[in-house]
Amino acid sequence: MAAKKVAGVLGATGSVGQRFILLLADHPDFELRVLGASPRSAGKKYIDAANWKQTDLMPKSAENIIVSDCSSANFKDCDIVFSGLDAEYAGPIEKEFVEAGIAVISNAKNYRREEDVPLVVPIVNPEHLDIIQQKLDTAKEAGKQRPGFIICISNCSTAGLVAPLKPLVDSFGPIDTLTTTTLQAISGAGFSPGVSGIDVLDNIIPYIGGEEDKMEWETKKILGSVSTDKSHVELLTPEEIKVSAQCNRVAVSDGHTECIALKFKNRPAPSVEQVKQCLRDYVCDAYKMKCHSAPEQTIHVLEQSDRPQPRLDRNRDRGYGVSVGRIREDPVLDFKMVVLSHNTIIGAAGSGVLIAEILLARNMI
Amino acid sequence: MAAKKVAGVLGATGSVGQRFILLLADHPDFELRVLGASPRSAGKKYIDAANWKQTDLMPKSAENIIVSDCSSANFKDCDIVFSGLDAEYAGPIEKEFVEAGIAVISNAKNYRREEDVPLVVPIVNPEHLDIIQQKLDTAKEAGKQRPGFIICISNCSTAGLVAPLKPLVDSFGPIDTLTTTTLQAISGAGFSPGVSGIDVLDNIIPYIGGEEDKMEWETKKILGSVSTDKSHVELLTPEEIKVSAQCNRVAVSDGHTECIALKFKNRPAPSVEQVKQCLRDYVCDAYKMKCHSAPEQTIHVLEQSDRPQPRLDRNRDRGYGVSVGRIREDPVLDFKMVVLSHNTIIGAAGSGVLIAEILLARNMI
Amino acid sequence: MAAKKVAGVLGATGSVGQRFILLLADHPDFELRVLGASPRSAGKKYIDAANWKQTDLMPKSAENIIVSDCSSANFKDCDIVFSGLDAEYAGPIEKEFVEAGIAVISNAKNYRREEDVPLVVPIVNPEHLDIIQQKLDTAKEAGKQRPGFIICISNCSTAGLVAPLKPLVDSFGPIDTLTTTTLQAISGAGFSPGVSGIDVLDNIIPYIGGEEDKMEWETKKILGSVSTDKSHVELLTPEEIKVSAQCNRVAVSDGHTECIALKFKNRPAPSVEQVKQCLRDYVCDAYKMKCHSAPEQTIHVLEQSDRPQPRLDRNRDRGYGVSVGRIREDPVLDFKMVVLSHNTIIGAAGSGVLIAEILLARNMI
Amino acid sequence: MAAKKVAGVLGATGSVGQRFILLLADHPDFELRVLGASPRSAGKKYIDAANWKQTDLMPKSAENIIVSDCSSANFKDCDIVFSGLDAEYAGPIEKEFVEAGIAVISNAKNYRREEDVPLVVPIVNPEHLDIIQQKLDTAKEAGKQRPGFIICISNCSTAGLVAPLKPLVDSFGPIDTLTTTTLQAISGAGFSPGVSGIDVLDNIIPYIGGEEDKMEWETKKILGSVSTDKSHVELLTPEEIKVSAQCNRVAVSDGHTECIALKFKNRPAPSVEQVKQCLRDYVCDAYKMKCHSAPEQTIHVLEQSDRPQPRLDRNRDRGYGVSVGRIREDPVLDFKMVVLSHNTIIGAAGSGVLIAEILLARNMI
Repeated sequence: MAAKKVAGVLGATGSVGQRFILLLADHPDFELRVLGASPRSAGKKYIDAANWKQTDLMPKSAENIIVSDCSSANFKDCDIVFSGLDAEYAGPIEKEFVEAGIAVISNAKNYRREEDVPLVVPIVNPEHLDIIQQKLDTAKEAGKQRPGFIICISNCSTAGLVAPLKPLVDSFGPIDTLTTTTLQAISGAGFSPGVSGIDVLDNIIPYIGGEEDKMEWETKKILGSVSTDKSHVELLTPEEIKVSAQCNRVAVSDGHTECIALKFKNRPAPSVEQVKQCLRDYVCDAYKMKCHSAPEQTIHVLEQSDRPQPRLDRNRDRGYGVSVGRIREDPVLDFKMVVLSHNTIIGAAGSGVLIAEILLARNMI
Repeated sequence: MAAKKVAGVLGATGSVGQRFILLLADHPDFELRVLGASPRSAGKKYIDAANWKQTDLMPKSAENIIVSDCSSANFKDCDIVFSGLDAEYAGPIEKEFVEAGIAVISNAKNYRREEDVPLVVPIVNPEHLDIIQQKLDTAKEAGKQRPGFIICISNCSTAGLVAPLKPLVDSFGPIDTLTTTTLQAISGAGFSPGVSGIDVLDNIIPYIGGEEDKMEWETKKILGSVSTDKSHVELLTPEEIKVSAQCNRVAVSDGHTECIALKFKNRPAPSVEQVKQCLRDYVCDAYKMKCHSAPEQTIHVLEQSDRPQPRLDRNRDRGYGVSVGRIREDPVLDFKMVVLSHNTIIGAAGSGVLIAEILLARNMI
Repeated sequence: MAAKKVAGVLGATGSVGQRFILLLADHPDFELRVLGASPRSAGKKYIDAANWKQTDLMPKSAENIIVSDCSSANFKDCDIVFSGLDAEYAGPIEKEFVEAGIAVISNAKNYRREEDVPLVVPIVNPEHLDIIQQKLDTAKEAGKQRPGFIICISNCSTAGLVAPLKPLVDSFGPIDTLTTTTLQAISGAGFSPGVSGIDVLDNIIPYIGGEEDKMEWETKKILGSVSTDKSHVELLTPEEIKVSAQCNRVAVSDGHTECIALKFKNRPAPSVEQVKQCLRDYVCDAYKMKCHSAPEQTIHVLEQSDRPQPRLDRNRDRGYGVSVGRIREDPVLDFKMVVLSHNTIIGAAGSGVLIAEILLARNMI
Repeated sequence: MAAKKVAGVLGATGSVGQRFILLLADHPDFELRVLGASPRSAGKKYIDAANWKQTDLMPKSAENIIVSDCSSANFKDCDIVFSGLDAEYAGPIEKEFVEAGIAVISNAKNYRREEDVPLVVPIVNPEHLDIIQQKLDTAKEAGKQRPGFIICISNCSTAGLVAPLKPLVDSFGPIDTLTTTTLQAISGAGFSPGVSGIDVLDNIIPYIGGEEDKMEWETKKILGSVSTDKSHVELLTPEEIKVSAQCNRVAVSDGHTECIALKFKNRPAPSVEQVKQCLRDYVCDAYKMKCHSAPEQTIHVLEQSDRPQPRLDRNRDRGYGVSVGRIREDPVLDFKMVVLSHNTIIGAAGSGVLIAEILLARNMI
């Protein structure tokens, strides 16, 4: 049995950081050793620095780790660093880490739009990691030191949206038009302060800053393909796919619900039953690679008329599975359906950990 | 000053019935005299029969009315009867009332699809009442007794949807495509038992039985036109307008939020600013007729990025005004926007009362 | 008809300040002229400075007032100033106002424990204002300029607690023991950020910093009496009354529910029916003085087994009335009951306005 | 390894029944074989009969069990039957089971007040099962057939209340006075329909029918002792302990929060630190007996000022552990504190399963 890889977490006291810590505790492949946070927390034991707000207890193994500040020197022994930093801070810190030769998987939005940075939903487009492989190979061939790199986790609501699209595109060809209206959980907004109680009690906030643009843009990158020279991702063009998102914040703790509709380019479109079967049959590469966290069933197709529901269905396959229900014909496009994904697992920290497992399976870390 | 018209309420102990009673208390045009409910309640004082669950106290004037059973004989002195009956019971009861020569405004779905029954959102298509006018005129000319009739209130979520469409169609021509994803309040489902608490706490129910079909169909009737002979409503055809609805139940007490998108038939489409101005300028006929409950501002166009919100905006113009926000271009259709309407006022009992006020203004009762 | 008194509001952009503004709009006795806020807001129109989050629209009359900073010079024409300042800022600002001769009614906690500052729940202990009267008279007799003064509004949960106690003590003598467990609304915590959504969704926070101590202490002051020389309030001693509070934050927007129990000193204790009758019969002095906002029915005694409920009962008498239900014998003390009060009306801004109306009725401003 | 005991569940389609099924799936000691429900469900596969509303999927092993009706003949091979029947039906059905010689553990209230029926919270008073042992022994000695019997699970809110009392009484002697105000979750009310959404959204229901009386009475039985002849339980008398409960329903899915206060009979009372240490040190008998479901830590004493919270703390020790926080001196009694227990685990089905494990450990089934 191979020694575990050494892992670090940036932004360890925040909401995403706490989730990384939970997912890495007792992980068969990784050993969490370094926790980075703001200077205010640095120097304290993690148990004293963090305002722990998870339903699972803080792992014993994390309690006594002394929090570091976020400079790469403190993480130089890490094989992989997971960043849960806020976008406000992530930019220069993550850049410094990459320059220091560190492998970073980031939940922040800062580098998602760099053309040579893979934007990865691990149950959807792990092949975009070929760009990193190419960098590593090039450096190796040139006799250079192993370079640092960054891989971005997608926006939480984008992850749920693209999950069912991947197998559909593989089976039935490109999507011409895609619309989604989201009902997003509040955990995605963190908790200091996150979404105000008075804003979600008996209420809907029909707006999440920047979210619609992220969804419309990121979908084009995730469904795009790696360039022939493996140097960058080629986005789908606005001509290739039209995407429209409307985003709402609702009084749900975890689990983003999306009412989506889509139209294929090819005619005739598949049947409802073909769409369902295609989704049911999908096995993501990460599962084939036997990654520890990969979902056994990537897409759960639900037949009950009133499902998926966030409280009941968000934890399928420990939050790594995506649930799709109400698949039916649409009077405007071809199909409409409801997609539910766990925003802090497949939509954030969980994706980060599964990406790391893929890197490991591919010997990239 | 004219004597008040005598009003009755069917289904008086239910959720919709209670709202009718509140809206008719101290009404300048109507005097509530008869309350009909199930045999279980009949014979009791209303205060003893009803499980009153409104935020306003039961009107003193209603407390001591002895509840009748729902036969037309008890309502023969009524100039107008408002029906809040459940669909399960409404069919034969309302039919019996009409046959007995009574004017009925019903919130039930049973007769909405009859071609000679107007389906009216009073701030949108009061001209559909011409069908009733024609019936009354015909009977009068023939020297027959004044006939009974039924007018249907639209489905609650349809009311909010069509409100902004009316002025847009008037100004910019027909709509080619219309999509809506709703986030609907629980008050619409009544309260015995209505929506279960465990179903909406930290949850979304992505399904409301029959609702999507109602929205798609009723829109075509409400935006349709009265036939030349005023005998029936001519629905928009599926070729004239494509409509798709996705309906969700959320943890909101009152106020349906809808994320809609639409495309006009005519090119070029208007600008965002033209759309806003058109909505702001709209004055509904009921207001022009000086109906008591008509909204001063029919459509409230909100400029803040995160509005409308149900808790904050549902009570504009006492629930008779509709709020529209986030009007912006859509990458798929022409525009997307968020519409908020008060489901128990403009979406149910309130519409019923305003329809009656229009009937009165037109001397139809 | 007398000219309206000129009013100002400190902390005008905050949650309490917004409520003051709503209550003062169209007030028959006061004209709102000056709005004070932080330097960040000063110089802007109120409509541009405030993040308005009320269910009623911002009063037209407030929209274009230019926000001032919080120095007394800007408020020198005010007959009365209402302070909704956070405790963090209220101390020196309110002090400076009083020294400048201004009459201040404050919602902040800073001066509540000063023995010569009345802590007033206007439906309970307006007679504590005698201390201010004495100050005014003394200055007048001495030929001095009219002095500034401060009157404190009680803590929101204390207001609801003491409301039914006042008539009970008046009728049945002193209370020996009092316990309360509160279920408090989130609006009391303001909204920037206030209570976090994730903290109240599917959750209870069984702690509100400082609240239990405030309730236990303030009760002793409000139920205490003015000293013979009218110089200060004499608190009830721990020997005179034992008070214990347990405070919880719950997912309610407005309205504090309290499960209270109490024991009288005198034996035999009154009967349940006597307690109910005493509460029903209570008419607060402010109502007798014909103050504009005073509740017609101070205490609403509810007989239904499952009332009061915050959503249904918080708006009795526009939030100035207090609802009491489930009055029954207690196996431990004499009685237990449920008390509901509107935390932002009788528990905060509304009390401030009613205190000002009492001052006016007494010719003290 | 011994063969598993055969288990049945009555009321299998209901909320409590579903929880029993989840807890019994993959249980090392029990094999679930018989599911009983109403005639409406009998004859169907469980997957077709149940409206499954748990966050965990229906166990595969239960899906295809054909639902029986609730007559003992169908359960004659069961070593133990768990009843989740509604009180409306439980009376005669459970009686018939006992007469047929079957061992029943019931969540219904019907037989709790029978003096020879143990009312057991398994982490508190398993010694009350001696009454059953005595019955079994007597029958055996008399050469009679093994008799049926019934053991009652306590009311959900009582379970949480008595959990910390047990070790306190053991260490510091009897309790003189006990008060509790509950904030109870809605899952306890089942889901067809259970608590209505409109009743708990932005609201509190300050009343749960019969609950206060149950808590006051059941506490006296659970803390009482088995008679010398082991024929019945001797309740604490009203003179021995005064108990007062006030019960509220709040918008929480699972987890009852209780604000309790208590006074010991003995003087001097222990210190806060002694109380905490006593609770921390408590190891319930079921854990000592190595029962599968017994909590490793029976009482979790929390030091953070704002804990326990239902969303964060209800799942300690899989819902079998009880959390206690804010232990502090009380100005009226000796101590006040906040207790949180999982109402469907230690407060209902979970207790039933743990009682069965104790029966097995004692060779009573």
